[in-house]
Amino acid sequence: MSAYHPLTEQEAIEIARSLGGFFTEGAELQSREIGDGNLNLVFHISDSASGKSLIMKQALPYAKVVGESWPLTLDRARIESEVLRSQGSLVPKLVPEVYHYDPELALTIMEDLSDHVIMRHGLIEGQRYPKFAEDISDFLAATLFYTSDLGMNQQQKKLRVGEFINPELCKITEDLIFDDPYTLSSNNNFEEAIADEAAALRSDSELHFEVAQLRHKFLTHSEALLHGDLHTGSIFITPESTKMIDPEFAYYGPMGFDVGAIIGNLLLNYAGHEHWSQDSASRAEYRAYLLETIRDIWVGFERKFRSLWQAHGIDRLANSAEGYRDYYLKRVLQDSIGFAGCKVVRRIVGLSHVIDIDRIPDDAARERAQRIALAIGKGLIKLNRQATSIDEVLELATKTTQVQ
Amino acid sequence: MSAYHPLTEQEAIEIARSLGGFFTEGAELQSREIGDGNLNLVFHISDSASGKSLIMKQALPYAKVVGESWPLTLDRARIESEVLRSQGSLVPKLVPEVYHYDPELALTIMEDLSDHVIMRHGLIEGQRYPKFAEDISDFLAATLFYTSDLGMNQQQKKLRVGEFINPELCKITEDLIFDDPYTLSSNNNFEEAIADEAAALRSDSELHFEVAQLRHKFLTHSEALLHGDLHTGSIFITPESTKMIDPEFAYYGPMGFDVGAIIGNLLLNYAGHEHWSQDSASRAEYRAYLLETIRDIWVGFERKFRSLWQAHGIDRLANSAEGYRDYYLKRVLQDSIGFAGCKVVRRIVGLSHVIDIDRIPDDAARERAQRIALAIGKGLIKLNRQATSIDEVLELATKTTQVQ
Repeated sequence: MSAYHPLTEQEAIEIARSLGGFFTEGAELQSREIGDGNLNLVFHISDSASGKSLIMKQALPYAKVVGESWPLTLDRARIESEVLRSQGSLVPKLVPEVYHYDPELALTIMEDLSDHVIMRHGLIEGQRYPKFAEDISDFLAATLFYTSDLGMNQQQKKLRVGEFINPELCKITEDLIFDDPYTLSSNNNFEEAIADEAAALRSDSELHFEVAQLRHKFLTHSEALLHGDLHTGSIFITPESTKMIDPEFAYYGPMGFDVGAIIGNLLLNYAGHEHWSQDSASRAEYRAYLLETIRDIWVGFERKFRSLWQAHGIDRLANSAEGYRDYYLKRVLQDSIGFAGCKVVRRIVGLSHVIDIDRIPDDAARERAQRIALAIGKGLIKLNRQATSIDEVLELATKTTQVQ
Repeated sequence: MSAYHPLTEQEAIEIARSLGGFFTEGAELQSREIGDGNLNLVFHISDSASGKSLIMKQALPYAKVVGESWPLTLDRARIESEVLRSQGSLVPKLVPEVYHYDPELALTIMEDLSDHVIMRHGLIEGQRYPKFAEDISDFLAATLFYTSDLGMNQQQKKLRVGEFINPELCKITEDLIFDDPYTLSSNNNFEEAIADEAAALRSDSELHFEVAQLRHKFLTHSEALLHGDLHTGSIFITPESTKMIDPEFAYYGPMGFDVGAIIGNLLLNYAGHEHWSQDSASRAEYRAYLLETIRDIWVGFERKFRSLWQAHGIDRLANSAEGYRDYYLKRVLQDSIGFAGCKVVRRIVGLSHVIDIDRIPDDAARERAQRIALAIGKGLIKLNRQATSIDEVLELATKTTQVQ
């Protein structure tokens, strides 16, 4: 332990060496800083002799986004390590193992997942992940159920709400997702070609009404301990394995926010395949794969959540009230759809974009992809409280690519 | 300061004397323990020479309810004193002034309100309080608006949520209000004469569905810093003055829970006037007064809340989204109605009753009052999500006394 300062590679090696028993004594360790330097330092520490390696992630006291530097609490390292451990106790195969957490240094030492790729990259390349829907629905069902008032002691849950209060990172979401895209904001960032769409977002009062409600839910509904930023860049994947990483934005919020994050990001990729697929046949096929994945995620999540509730529900009245499970899950579906829509919209006109769309080199294709994404995003936001089935999401997405 | 122990009257006097400047030096102080001894010691300390007096309230580490002793956190004294100060900064005329709080002793020293009476007693006697609707709607509008994401900094609000996590006292509400009355529970307490009604509560699946939803809101909707136990026994009153006391159950919850508590308790008194009024004409008159008061409370609350929002709303999107204010306030009305119903039901068949009904000496009148109250309670719970106007509450209450 020592006072906080950003570590050098040499210091990182010393700390790794001091971890009892992980590396063999006297091993020659290599360190490589592999973070993007925006929010965290990430050291990959390895011993080529034994082939063993680990990751050391240190929070930086600021966030760099589009060149600007925002101060950002180091407490997010505590939140991230505690959430990873909480998730690890529920779904150990689906998160990196945490070996050690050092609060002074805001440093988490954890399992190396270098054999995995960031899911967003894989999707852009048109990869398929046959285990993904199964894994992510396991993850969502277990982490959302067991941290909620349905699945854990309700007095303990209140203390957990207190431990995971995360004002600074929630504010990023509140501003960038639930405000900026719908007003003139210097945070916004969109291409001139879709200035008409950006203007339409600012004057669509039906949309504003729905987003105000979703924002209210994000601000006040303490249902479950969320990952809080569950996009396809927070997922490490191979065809055989899925690992959810980076839960720095974790807090107690509405379940649909995590479910919606995944759905929204798959739909952003869906829009991006306007370019990434080789031809219209493979495009249609890949898009169909993405939509099936979305359906499988929801259907799997709902089935598993119900089954956990049936077997392990601790709330007498919620367990026994006739029709309450159906009602509860319909509400989670509706929230998920609304949040998915908000996630999509902000990635087109807001501060932070996704490479699924931004890296499309062809201007016309990129513009088409952006318009498809916005049609999906707005459609989902307007659908949310009316939705009764995940199929409506699939139909909506399909229509936007037929119309364009 | 000293380690926690229940104070003697002599110790209370010494502490009062040590409060710089309140009593004149050398004053001869009298102490009278006036608490009911169930949850707290309450010392009334006075100086007959100067006529000055104050109240010292010390939390006991247990609650006695119907002879049984439950351990109960002393932290509720901190919560109570902090909430009184928070409310005092918003509506100073409507709460007792806190002079001092001693965390070690779980002791709050505050303004003496002995010239006021407990509102429940006044209502039983048929008193009218012409300022009450104005005062309580001021209280509700200010305390709920300014502690919510609509009226205060949203990052500060999250920290406040953490400071007012109150698991033990919330559990009392969760069990006694949102569970026991709807199942076989040893906590329940009802008279044999209404065993049929109690049985009907246990098998009414429409009711269970609605109560499960209201329970979910109580568990998860962190909208505003509630008083948490705002019944007519928590209100000190004179025709000129209203003071809300005893916010030990305070936590961040759904706004409608506080509004509903008041409405529910006025309706319990409404049911009790089956006996308390002298004759059927004065009964009808007093009941009409109670219903007018309920209407005035809601109408006043809604108007004042809107006006605070209009003038001081800090949430850009919530401020500007067309129709959102109407929607928001309709939802608070619906929640208030549902919670009011839950409050009424539990006071008839649950652990803790109200003297408005229990002290009716005539068996037949008491039974009639209980049946009226249950008809109102169940009616409100079933109405809640469908309600569009406070008038529906008045109509429902009126019908139950016509039918009986």
